[in-house]
Amino acid sequence: MFVEEYITKLKPYEGGKPIEELRRELGIKGEIIKLASNENPLGPSKKAIKAIKKIAESVNLYPDGDCYYLKEKLSNKLGVSRDNLVFGNGSDELLELIFRTFATKNGDEILYCYPSFVEYKIIGSSFNKKLVEVPLKGFSYDIDELIKAINSNTRIIFLNTPNNPTGTIIKRSDIERVIEATDSNKTLVVIDEAYYEYAIAEDDYEELLDLYKKGNVVILRTFSKAYGLAGLRIGYGIAGEEIIDYLNRVRPPFNVNLVAQHAALAALDDEEHIRRSVEVNRAGKEYLYREFDNMGITYIKTYANFILFDAKKDANYVYGELLKRGVIVRSMAGYGYKSMLRVTIGTPRENEIFIKNLREVLDV
Amino acid sequence: MFVEEYITKLKPYEGGKPIEELRRELGIKGEIIKLASNENPLGPSKKAIKAIKKIAESVNLYPDGDCYYLKEKLSNKLGVSRDNLVFGNGSDELLELIFRTFATKNGDEILYCYPSFVEYKIIGSSFNKKLVEVPLKGFSYDIDELIKAINSNTRIIFLNTPNNPTGTIIKRSDIERVIEATDSNKTLVVIDEAYYEYAIAEDDYEELLDLYKKGNVVILRTFSKAYGLAGLRIGYGIAGEEIIDYLNRVRPPFNVNLVAQHAALAALDDEEHIRRSVEVNRAGKEYLYREFDNMGITYIKTYANFILFDAKKDANYVYGELLKRGVIVRSMAGYGYKSMLRVTIGTPRENEIFIKNLREVLDV
Repeated sequence: MFVEEYITKLKPYEGGKPIEELRRELGIKGEIIKLASNENPLGPSKKAIKAIKKIAESVNLYPDGDCYYLKEKLSNKLGVSRDNLVFGNGSDELLELIFRTFATKNGDEILYCYPSFVEYKIIGSSFNKKLVEVPLKGFSYDIDELIKAINSNTRIIFLNTPNNPTGTIIKRSDIERVIEATDSNKTLVVIDEAYYEYAIAEDDYEELLDLYKKGNVVILRTFSKAYGLAGLRIGYGIAGEEIIDYLNRVRPPFNVNLVAQHAALAALDDEEHIRRSVEVNRAGKEYLYREFDNMGITYIKTYANFILFDAKKDANYVYGELLKRGVIVRSMAGYGYKSMLRVTIGTPRENEIFIKNLREVLDV
Repeated sequence: MFVEEYITKLKPYEGGKPIEELRRELGIKGEIIKLASNENPLGPSKKAIKAIKKIAESVNLYPDGDCYYLKEKLSNKLGVSRDNLVFGNGSDELLELIFRTFATKNGDEILYCYPSFVEYKIIGSSFNKKLVEVPLKGFSYDIDELIKAINSNTRIIFLNTPNNPTGTIIKRSDIERVIEATDSNKTLVVIDEAYYEYAIAEDDYEELLDLYKKGNVVILRTFSKAYGLAGLRIGYGIAGEEIIDYLNRVRPPFNVNLVAQHAALAALDDEEHIRRSVEVNRAGKEYLYREFDNMGITYIKTYANFILFDAKKDANYVYGELLKRGVIVRSMAGYGYKSMLRVTIGTPRENEIFIKNLREVLDV
């Protein structure tokens, strides 16, 4: 079958093996700890678990295509209108919808700093868009260079704050400068706040919500991280009514599954779970900072639930050695950080096992 | 924000109100029966329900992006290789993926008979494709005219068998004629068998599975209908390895949620549930045929779990009157069938309530 050349150049998705398969292949006998995907180590909210069990018998029914009750609750919580919200099969699907709705012309350019969330690049490539990547400056978005790169073909700018994989944030005044530098009729500014709940718990993270009123801004948040619902795939976008209306014209009607809607609704009622998740993250972060300091390892101060650190050895080697010991983290060699890795902040116990094994691998 | 003109012409998705909201608005006191979405009236398999409850506590973890175990079980069941399978967030997402992978050029044409599954048109429009619709002939696909409409721009042909909303099927020999009439390098033939489990229980429905070997064929099936998992959103495609490889290059990595994967895996183990679902459908169909005959109502012989019938009154009026009585079906007026409606075959009790109310509305 004929496909265009750019499709043949896309990297086929390499299925990561399930943990049980990995265990068999590597001959790992003991416990395996996954600190690789920035999942909430406390699990989902108990209220969400209860809601899932309750709705299990009704999954023969199609989900509500409008996310009626979820939209109701979230709009009240955020103080926005129902018409300012859109839900997706994870934020990943919302990124796709944004491309399909707004980046439809040949020559459209996509702009972001690099390294950042890898899906901007992957999805952009799958739509055959020109990707303009401005290198991070000292692990942070380089706003001056980003603004210089804006031109009349720039259709979407992605601002990831906190930024994955560095954990750094973008100042509100810098985001405002980016928005001001755009032609609001031509360029959409997507503020990807997947780690919002962790960031806002820090004193110096500035609330960005009201920026959705600018008319060419979409704010993306998710239930996959602090809310602990990654497996259910549900994220949301907050934007002006015109943007939401266009996205809804392209959005598939039953994109968010029934179980995700019920679990998210219940999770929004469990603020204590978010509070505990943020607290466990803060304590884990302080522990890891301390241990890294003791080991002479440098790291980037994070606003999220992961830490980028410099092992000062080949990152792929360190990754492989940790893997053999049953600890899964991410090597950042593929991002050009040849000796750096990203570790998700886990439970106190998981953090200790990670540190113990890292000490062994690095011999410090 | 600028969008291309075709986006502004797409119909925004109109959120259907949840049943509880409908009840409030229409002031319906009694039971509401939904026979509008071809859901399995028996509910999901008990094994699937158990699997959902079991995995509920782990939804903080991302799903397996490769559907490893599900692929394993389904490939064994079907007698195809793992590399012949792809899973989607419902078959809807697979349709989107097919467009994004194969219908990427300006001027690409999409070909199908009409009326057929409405998503071919909706998704095709959202990708700005030229839709070539050949009218059904006596409620069935008109294969001669379809073949005549094939030209060098035809990129995707959709064959829906059993066809929604008519319930009619396409003969295997006719499908083979369509495939033979295509340039296998240029045109993809999508055989959409969403209602396969119901159809194959009939003596004269011919197995089509091996047609995936043709190289330019994708067969779509789903867990949404007979398997009773519509709310979880999981469908699959069977195709040659080259096609699957291309689709996997475009497919988002975590498109199928964790709960859907576990429920589908369990549902595949419950053949008794499928058997019972098919049996309840067969009995309900015979009951409805008999009652329609008694009422002098004509209908189209169905191979699926719904029946298209002619009320010989304005379909929207009949729909509205049934709705007031708490029975939700589908008016087919929007498809050009001004006096026809589509009813999902329910449980014996649901079918009786539907007939009782239809008699009242039609005064027969």
